[in-house]
Amino acid sequence: MQLLKDREQELRDRHGITFRITGIASRRLGWISDPSGIDARGAADASSAMPQQPAHTLSGIQDWLAAAQADVLFEATSLNVHTGQPAVDHIRAALNHGAHAITANKGPIVHAYRELRDLAAAKNKRFLFESTVMDGVPIFSFFDQLPAIRLQGFHGILNSTTNVILTEMENGLTFDEARKKAQSLGIAGYDAAVKTAALITVLMDVPIKLEEIERKGIRNLSAEAVRAAKKDARPYKLICRAKKTNEEQGITATVRPEQIPQTDPMSQIAGTSSYIYFETDIFPGLALTEENPGLYATAYGMLADFVRAGT
Amino acid sequence: MQLLKDREQELRDRHGITFRITGIASRRLGWISDPSGIDARGAADASSAMPQQPAHTLSGIQDWLAAAQADVLFEATSLNVHTGQPAVDHIRAALNHGAHAITANKGPIVHAYRELRDLAAAKNKRFLFESTVMDGVPIFSFFDQLPAIRLQGFHGILNSTTNVILTEMENGLTFDEARKKAQSLGIAGYDAAVKTAALITVLMDVPIKLEEIERKGIRNLSAEAVRAAKKDARPYKLICRAKKTNEEQGITATVRPEQIPQTDPMSQIAGTSSYIYFETDIFPGLALTEENPGLYATAYGMLADFVRAGT
Repeated sequence: MQLLKDREQELRDRHGITFRITGIASRRLGWISDPSGIDARGAADASSAMPQQPAHTLSGIQDWLAAAQADVLFEATSLNVHTGQPAVDHIRAALNHGAHAITANKGPIVHAYRELRDLAAAKNKRFLFESTVMDGVPIFSFFDQLPAIRLQGFHGILNSTTNVILTEMENGLTFDEARKKAQSLGIAGYDAAVKTAALITVLMDVPIKLEEIERKGIRNLSAEAVRAAKKDARPYKLICRAKKTNEEQGITATVRPEQIPQTDPMSQIAGTSSYIYFETDIFPGLALTEENPGLYATAYGMLADFVRAGT
Repeated sequence: MQLLKDREQELRDRHGITFRITGIASRRLGWISDPSGIDARGAADASSAMPQQPAHTLSGIQDWLAAAQADVLFEATSLNVHTGQPAVDHIRAALNHGAHAITANKGPIVHAYRELRDLAAAKNKRFLFESTVMDGVPIFSFFDQLPAIRLQGFHGILNSTTNVILTEMENGLTFDEARKKAQSLGIAGYDAAVKTAALITVLMDVPIKLEEIERKGIRNLSAEAVRAAKKDARPYKLICRAKKTNEEQGITATVRPEQIPQTDPMSQIAGTSSYIYFETDIFPGLALTEENPGLYATAYGMLADFVRAGT
């Protein structure tokens, strides 16, 4: 919301988009709505100062969307790896209500991509999720700009928490110290696999289950092994890989620590940076690198989706 | 045209685009047109077998566009660094005729970007040029997907001929032998500067003249210096750089050989690969790498522009 405020003038002048926030929902605030506009910063401040009963409480997402007269939903619940809920329900409700749905949650892509994509098309609304992989870097939109191309595989480094931990271990910490320093592991190693599944589902149009991705975390790497690998100029990185097989809709995918030779750009991806390398028929190797994303990178992905929805 | 034929079915099925070639113009063929469709391969074969008088000769581009009833012009004349002609005239004529204009020629961007962009907008047609920088990698379209972002600078390796020459010199050839092996230097070092100017003009919205780019080629590097630099793990690369200054519309830009440390991904860009690193407010470092582009990479850029124009 900070970024939305910051760029309000640019959105109006350059993209012809004006907006007002007519609903906010969170565990703390409940379901707030006011079609004439809410002072979002005020609401957030009030809530962080003191939990309070919001002015309008509504029973659920459908009532709330109707009360807010929502044109666009920003969905930012946290990831449920196993079901994709409640994000799937929120997005479905928004599209059925007639609003565009923008999410930063990977769950709905893995669990309901085709349904939500088709529902959005039927309602002539957009289902957008550019914040889900590589922060806000427009990976999915980049592929929209590669018409009639065939994606045969990809590999990359997509989870920054594990990458920060490995870098800290190289610098002398144990796994537990490094993990603590990296703050939150999120959902313990699932993040990279969920991103890999999202890319396969959308860009290769093959729905894949998380269980079908061979998954190995960095937890069993000893600090000694990590430091020895770094010294040997073949550092460990948690690498995502996907590759088409010869079978129809066949994909093999792995997420696991690999030692990367110095000649591979992935050996240089440290800390919170990320990297993806696409193998396509026209461009045998097309790579995107995001170095040290700014604080607003993920929020920016949602803002950019908002512009896409509005134009 | 080969690629267009190859992807004909995909264009129809996935993008709802059907087409026929109704005009061809070249020095050898003259101005050929037939609104009912031309067998392009037949025409090209006939011409390579034996120069012949084409069936319909017309006096110039306007008559030819009218006779062909053109909806889209593919412009692929060679670069005139100093004037951008005749490509500028061709594109202007196409837009005035009411056709989309797609070019693989960088000259019109450097010499007439704003005029052609505004003319295209006035005619509600597209002026597209995704083949001009980094073969067909959709760099400009990538920025269309980064709304409200501020580009502060960029650097990269954009000319593959000089890069091939440097690689060959590292492997033991002299400059002249390497240049011969790399076949054509194009227009001797201008290519990278013209690409740099094109990126500045379009992505930073600052029209810049070629003379304003500080330009130094690789011609004066001795083979010994190139090999010593490589051995020292700081290889020479021809690097393009642009940076906003504090002044309004101020830009400094250079194209010159630089020694690149091994920790910089540019040190790994060899042969025909290319690389660009963008500095933006949201993403401090966002890089695109194109490794060993396929034969059809540039043609693909025009095909993708064709899809953009048609949708």
